[in-house]
Amino acid sequence: MSTPAYDELAATWTRLHHLSHLQSIAGWDQAANMPPKGVEARAAAMAEMAALLHRMRTDPQLPTRLARAEQESLTEPQRANLREMRREWRLANALPESLVQRQQLATSRCEHAWRTQRPANDWAGFLVNFREVLALAREEAALLSAETGLAKYDAMMDRFEPGMTSARLDVIFGEVRQWLPGLVQRVMARQADEKVVQPAGPFPVQQQRALCEQAMRLLGFDFEAGRLDVSTHPFCGGVPEDVRMTTRFREDEFLGSLMGTVHETGHGRYEQNLPRDWLGQPLANARSMALHESQSLSFEMQLAMHPGFVRHLAPLVAAAFGRQPAFEPANLHRLLTRVKPGLIRVDADEVTYAAHVILRYEIERPLVEGDIEPEDIPALWDAKMMELLGLDTRGNFKDGPLQDVHWPEALIGYFPCYSLGAMYAAQWFAAMRRATPDLDARIDRGDFAVVFDWLRTHIWSQASRWSTDELAVRASGEVLNPAHFKAHLEARYLG
Amino acid sequence: MSTPAYDELAATWTRLHHLSHLQSIAGWDQAANMPPKGVEARAAAMAEMAALLHRMRTDPQLPTRLARAEQESLTEPQRANLREMRREWRLANALPESLVQRQQLATSRCEHAWRTQRPANDWAGFLVNFREVLALAREEAALLSAETGLAKYDAMMDRFEPGMTSARLDVIFGEVRQWLPGLVQRVMARQADEKVVQPAGPFPVQQQRALCEQAMRLLGFDFEAGRLDVSTHPFCGGVPEDVRMTTRFREDEFLGSLMGTVHETGHGRYEQNLPRDWLGQPLANARSMALHESQSLSFEMQLAMHPGFVRHLAPLVAAAFGRQPAFEPANLHRLLTRVKPGLIRVDADEVTYAAHVILRYEIERPLVEGDIEPEDIPALWDAKMMELLGLDTRGNFKDGPLQDVHWPEALIGYFPCYSLGAMYAAQWFAAMRRATPDLDARIDRGDFAVVFDWLRTHIWSQASRWSTDELAVRASGEVLNPAHFKAHLEARYLG
Repeated sequence: MSTPAYDELAATWTRLHHLSHLQSIAGWDQAANMPPKGVEARAAAMAEMAALLHRMRTDPQLPTRLARAEQESLTEPQRANLREMRREWRLANALPESLVQRQQLATSRCEHAWRTQRPANDWAGFLVNFREVLALAREEAALLSAETGLAKYDAMMDRFEPGMTSARLDVIFGEVRQWLPGLVQRVMARQADEKVVQPAGPFPVQQQRALCEQAMRLLGFDFEAGRLDVSTHPFCGGVPEDVRMTTRFREDEFLGSLMGTVHETGHGRYEQNLPRDWLGQPLANARSMALHESQSLSFEMQLAMHPGFVRHLAPLVAAAFGRQPAFEPANLHRLLTRVKPGLIRVDADEVTYAAHVILRYEIERPLVEGDIEPEDIPALWDAKMMELLGLDTRGNFKDGPLQDVHWPEALIGYFPCYSLGAMYAAQWFAAMRRATPDLDARIDRGDFAVVFDWLRTHIWSQASRWSTDELAVRASGEVLNPAHFKAHLEARYLG
Repeated sequence: MSTPAYDELAATWTRLHHLSHLQSIAGWDQAANMPPKGVEARAAAMAEMAALLHRMRTDPQLPTRLARAEQESLTEPQRANLREMRREWRLANALPESLVQRQQLATSRCEHAWRTQRPANDWAGFLVNFREVLALAREEAALLSAETGLAKYDAMMDRFEPGMTSARLDVIFGEVRQWLPGLVQRVMARQADEKVVQPAGPFPVQQQRALCEQAMRLLGFDFEAGRLDVSTHPFCGGVPEDVRMTTRFREDEFLGSLMGTVHETGHGRYEQNLPRDWLGQPLANARSMALHESQSLSFEMQLAMHPGFVRHLAPLVAAAFGRQPAFEPANLHRLLTRVKPGLIRVDADEVTYAAHVILRYEIERPLVEGDIEPEDIPALWDAKMMELLGLDTRGNFKDGPLQDVHWPEALIGYFPCYSLGAMYAAQWFAAMRRATPDLDARIDRGDFAVVFDWLRTHIWSQASRWSTDELAVRASGEVLNPAHFKAHLEARYLG
């Protein structure tokens, strides 16, 4: 069957893929290697490439080709690929170049000033820049809403999590809101008289690095197709054929780098196992950010905090730093599963984490929809932290609304993906347990392949072939069902 | 003064510069970081970028713009910049796309097979691929010759060393041929009863690396604008704002990595000190490959093998590996200046090095001009090695004509740059000594800034503003004069 329009589109996306490859490696290099005086030249080079890719994605010939290809006789995966192409095209074309440029300037100014405003607790100074960031985000939300027919916040969230709506989130997070504060109290009461031995440092960086690489091997990361390096903010970058993960080390603490590495390994294995046959086409991309987080959290929360896994991790920790009572499997597991409400999202345990996300969702949604103003954030923040976690945050902006990079960077609509990811991860493990009733015994024995095989079959290899809902149904028999997340927490922390 | 055509050209070259930046960093990454399974995707990405840059350089609008700009009222540096733009445009347009593609295939096949043919001493196997590489190189030489009006070999050499001709080379190398064999004999006789203590290994890689970085600091490398990494074949890559040097380490030997690093540091400082005002324009590029080698060899041969420099290097070596008699300054200097004819060009000392280059020049020139055939190479090689260095190479292809990557990669016309670079380096130091009569005393005292200042003023900051001959006259009062090279060798080795 001849499909000339589709074929031309596929060739364009292959070119986009190749050029994005260089952009991605240069981005990784910027974070992991680049010396300080390289900043300006790299920024100019990256901006040139971004403009080039944008021109390719807004090529005036694309709409005709997309329309023609829709009339061609395509296979089912080709049709799914075309759907993803149209989505990318729509996102690239929805915003005028001038808005994109103003946003780049505003967010980069706001983010740069935020780096010093946060430690200085300077909320008033932050507001000066953030008002402009927000004004532009509202403009963007209005344009995306007009283009997609979604509500403004939903249109923003759709960039990261296609198909998710605030109507659904309100139900999902509304339920969590009901049971979370009580659960936190019960878990804390139960853990109150647990004895936990703290590890004694220092933990030399070289040993931490070796330990992280061993954990990655245990988790099946392919070092022939990727590597681990160091950056200030850990991330998983590169390309599916060559995944570049980063972590960061502190000599006084090793669980941060270790569990951070486990988290990024989940992202990394998803990327490494995307379908090779379709590489370079949007069909082969990871499904969504919640799905991506569901992989990092399947690794970090579901697998690595499983007592069976900890039993296999503990000897590696002892080999790295010498034997300590703190490294006994039972104690290491207690260290990893300690629950305590805190001010900082990225330091939160898996139980209290959702509270941080819900709070941000409940603020950023009315913010971008114009129902509240930036001045209203601190009071809302204080009230919600007290309500959800019983913590007083008044006047502490640096550990409050100034703590995340998302708002200065206008990444509005991203936060929900973290908790959705944790919920999907629990749902995947529930499905695994149905398919493999002795899953826990297998994990106890160190047979982690059963986990990886399930994820490969149901998530990694499926890439963007189906909508998120359809993928979830095919994988687990139902769309997102947060009951699994609650059941997981109850089983692990109260069981 | 309005210069619209020139301004458009300058904007195009700025874009080329930004995109080449990403290409260059990805190339460095490929050699220094990339895991094995990244090969295919990276090759595809690099080919996409090469094609894109080629399309930009062969944009059919360029000839008109170049012609219009030549009529505009330009400043003198703008005019020099326009000259360099035209040169780049001519080189990119001289060869049909199809020839470039066939060459890429043929050289990559030949180079890949050569990696195993060389250790297997398989000259016959090599010839099978090399015949095709040569046929295409001859096609290229004919096209470049037609475009430039130069002889075929000269047209090939002009890509690396604009303005140099084989007529001049014949004179220059003809003289060296006269005095070199006799000089080698005299130096060897003189060194015959020198006592040289060999360093005792092993030399741990971490200490070697630290030593190399200290040597780079001593030589003024700016680590805020570049870094040192490891690759199989050392090179100096990256961009002027962010120079990426590589070296390689062997535990049983440290002078190779150290002097290799010193060599690349010369390349690196040239790049780091190219004029910032013109960055992104061809005017700001390094003048030529011989000039580039003149910087690496100014660092490696002129400065780092100077007894005064060795006195400052020796304590760093002792601090890295512990005190040894071999690390006494006088002994270290004897180690670095040991002269002995050998089979391998890259292992050659500075006295015998020229013989390796002359031999290759005398073979590759008639080869590309069609006066000899690949079958003739071994006999010519044997005869010239015997004549120039008194060594028997019969039947030893792997340490003979199979030793370099240049021919499998069709880099015909490059070899002369190495020796021209050594000659220019000697000429620069002769000019420095005229300008600063106490140069040697200053180097003895560790005042190397006097060297760097001269190079910055006369070479680095001048970039491609003048032709090589004019640059040499401005820097040293004369065009290339190989007498300085001979005088340098006589002073150092017989003085």
